[in-house]
Amino acid sequence: MSTADGLLSSVTLVLGGARSGKSRHAEALVRGAGPGPWAYVATAQAFDDEMRERIARHRADREATGPGGWRTVEAPLDLGAAIAAEPAARPLLVDCLTLWLTNLMLGQRDIAAGIDALEAALAARGAPSVLVANEVGLGIVPDNALARAFRDEAGRLNQRLAARAGRVHFIVAGLPIVVK
Amino acid sequence: MSTADGLLSSVTLVLGGARSGKSRHAEALVRGAGPGPWAYVATAQAFDDEMRERIARHRADREATGPGGWRTVEAPLDLGAAIAAEPAARPLLVDCLTLWLTNLMLGQRDIAAGIDALEAALAARGAPSVLVANEVGLGIVPDNALARAFRDEAGRLNQRLAARAGRVHFIVAGLPIVVK
Amino acid sequence: MSTADGLLSSVTLVLGGARSGKSRHAEALVRGAGPGPWAYVATAQAFDDEMRERIARHRADREATGPGGWRTVEAPLDLGAAIAAEPAARPLLVDCLTLWLTNLMLGQRDIAAGIDALEAALAARGAPSVLVANEVGLGIVPDNALARAFRDEAGRLNQRLAARAGRVHFIVAGLPIVVK
Repeated sequence: MSTADGLLSSVTLVLGGARSGKSRHAEALVRGAGPGPWAYVATAQAFDDEMRERIARHRADREATGPGGWRTVEAPLDLGAAIAAEPAARPLLVDCLTLWLTNLMLGQRDIAAGIDALEAALAARGAPSVLVANEVGLGIVPDNALARAFRDEAGRLNQRLAARAGRVHFIVAGLPIVVK
Repeated sequence: MSTADGLLSSVTLVLGGARSGKSRHAEALVRGAGPGPWAYVATAQAFDDEMRERIARHRADREATGPGGWRTVEAPLDLGAAIAAEPAARPLLVDCLTLWLTNLMLGQRDIAAGIDALEAALAARGAPSVLVANEVGLGIVPDNALARAFRDEAGRLNQRLAARAGRVHFIVAGLPIVVK
Repeated sequence: MSTADGLLSSVTLVLGGARSGKSRHAEALVRGAGPGPWAYVATAQAFDDEMRERIARHRADREATGPGGWRTVEAPLDLGAAIAAEPAARPLLVDCLTLWLTNLMLGQRDIAAGIDALEAALAARGAPSVLVANEVGLGIVPDNALARAFRDEAGRLNQRLAARAGRVHFIVAGLPIVVK
C-alpha cells in the first residue's frame, strides 16, 4: 500500500479546541480553494437536544458565511465511502474526525479499518480536502477509563493524519498557528 | 457602530492555560509599554480561601516583579465602566476576562451587553490595553452541561476579542507564541 | 547558586498533551544528537494494569523506532541523582517530568528540593538533555482540589524549566511548534 504512506499534499488538517473557531477557519479554506459547490461531510449524530442545537447552529453559521454552494453529506460511520462517492474534483470539508471517532467507538466499529478507508479515499482525490479535528489531550487526566481511552485514540488519529497531511493548522481563538 | 467592528490596534490579547505564566507575560507587556502608573483591572472575586490565596499570590508576584506603580481597580462585573473611568493615556491590564465571564454568568448578567461595553471602552482609549484570558477548550468534553456552556461562552469571547485585537499571544510555559 | 539561574543551552523541553507524540519527538531529538548509547530516564511507576500496559507500549515504540542503544534507568523519585549518575557526555532523555511530579506529590517529597537537584544535575552535564513534560492546564477547571493543586504545580514546573532550557518545543499531533 504505497499510497497509504506518502504525503497527501492536497489534505489540510485543522486542529483546535472546543469553540476555537476551527470549523469556520476550515470552511474559509475550502471556499478559498475554488468555486462551489463544495462538499460538507458531516459526521455529527444528534443524540439529544444539545447536540441537535449545536448542529443547527453550525449549519446556520455555514450558510451565513458562505455564498451558498455547500452540499451536505451525512457520514457518521462510513466516512471513507462517503468521501469516495463525492466527485474527485470537488473541494471537500470533513467536520469533524473526532465525532466520527466517537461514533466508531460507540458503534463498536473497526477503527483501524475505518482510518485505512478514510486515507485511501483522500489519496484518490484531486481537489483540496480539509479535515477538522479536536485536540482533547491538554487538560488534566480524566477520571474515567473510557474518557482516557477516547483521548488516546483521538490523539493517535490526529498524529496519523497530521503526518500525512500537506498542511496542519492549530487554531487558537479563531486564528491559525501554522504547524506544517 | 462602526467602531465595534474595526481593529483595535492598541489591544493585546494574552491567552493561555492555568499557571501558564500568562499574567506575568501580560504585566511585562504593560510595563514595557511606557512608564507607570499602570492600571491593573482585577476581575477576581474571592469566594473561598483558595481563591483569596490565589489573588494574594498574584498581587505579591506583581509587586515583586514591577517597580511599583500599579494602580489596582476591582471590576468583577462592570468591566467596561471600570475601563472607561481610567485615564485614556494610562497603560492598562485586565486580568482576566475568563473570571469576568464567570462572574457575569453566576450573576445572571447580560453577557452580550457586557462585551459591547468592554469593546466600546477599549476603542475609546489611546494607550495600550492588555487583556488576559484563559483557554479552556483543549481537554475532554466536561461531564456537566454548565461546564460545557461556560466553555462555549469562553471560546466565543476569546474568538471575538482575538478578531479585534491588534496582537494575540498564546502562552505556553511562560513563553509566547505570537498568533497575530 | 549562580548556575541555578543561567540558561542551560544543552537542555530541550518538549511539552505536549496526552498522546501528542511528545515522547517520539523527544526520542528523535536525542537520537539525532549523536551516536548511542543514549540514556532513557523513566519516571513512570506502574500502579495498575493500565499503567503497566502504557509503559510496555512506550518501551516497544522506543525499541521499534531506534536502532537500539537505549539504556533505561528507572527514577520515579530521585531524578537529580539518577541524572548525575549517568556519564556526562551521554545524550539523555527524561520521560516524563509530569509523572515524576506526581510521584513526588504522592510520596510527600520536597518538590522544591527535587527541582533544585534536577537543575543542578542538568547544569553539570555536557551532552544534550531532552525533558518531556505534559501540558495539563488547557481544559476546564477540575472539580477537585487535588487536581487543581497538581495542575498548578505542573504549570509552575514547566514555566521554570522552560525559562532555563535552551530550546522549548510544543508538540501538536506529533509536530513541533518551536516556542524557544
